[in-house]
Amino acid sequence: MKPTHIEHLGIAVTSLEETMPFFEFLTGSKCYNIEVVEDQKVKTAFFKVGEVKIELLEPTCPESTIAKFIEKNGGKGGIHHVAFNVENVAEALKEAEAAGIRLIDLQPRKGAENLMIGFLHPKNTCGVLTELCEQPK
Amino acid sequence: MKPTHIEHLGIAVTSLEETMPFFEFLTGSKCYNIEVVEDQKVKTAFFKVGEVKIELLEPTCPESTIAKFIEKNGGKGGIHHVAFNVENVAEALKEAEAAGIRLIDLQPRKGAENLMIGFLHPKNTCGVLTELCEQPK
Repeated sequence: MKPTHIEHLGIAVTSLEETMPFFEFLTGSKCYNIEVVEDQKVKTAFFKVGEVKIELLEPTCPESTIAKFIEKNGGKGGIHHVAFNVENVAEALKEAEAAGIRLIDLQPRKGAENLMIGFLHPKNTCGVLTELCEQPK
Repeated sequence: MKPTHIEHLGIAVTSLEETMPFFEFLTGSKCYNIEVVEDQKVKTAFFKVGEVKIELLEPTCPESTIAKFIEKNGGKGGIHHVAFNVENVAEALKEAEAAGIRLIDLQPRKGAENLMIGFLHPKNTCGVLTELCEQPK
């Protein structure tokens, strides 16, 4: 696998409203996009630092995996996942599987910002929840 | 604050030897530097993806904050911190303090790869352990 760059860093937050001022300060930038991703039961807010996006993730319901992450984390937010940009996410998933890495997504699916995405399973990724992304054509 | 880019992502691991093959696969690159940081009681291994370094952190003794992180994390590694590159870390720390953010480091200190570094306190950073770094002159 040869990712071009880290596409984004996914950060779980309890509330976008309460945490956005800190990330505005930290990144020295304004949030440039807010989007609800129904599929993942999250409301996301994006910031950019260099070539990497910071994606804040607020759960939209208690069944959201982000709500469960926050619950397990003592009710606090934190770094949830890291996403690597690849040319072709379907091929990268196959390559990971062939290398013995368990997958969460066997096939690419649509993520925020129209990216095609796929997650590797953290059991095989040293505890780092890893997403692969492909830019929309 | 206006960081230029994400300098690195710090990832706690139980063993560099056991986890480096996965990160070689994931980043499509070889580790380019291994360094012991006595001050932080860690042995680090570096990879690069685009403009961001992946810094693996293996504790060198049980008193290491990385050993404690792994212990709290059920014996597993995971994403430990995110580091933002700034022009002047002393000024950025002052700016953060003036914005009401608690600091771990009141003054810059020397980190891996001869960077000057300072940590913000995760109590004020939405659960994200945040490092500020300045490149050596």
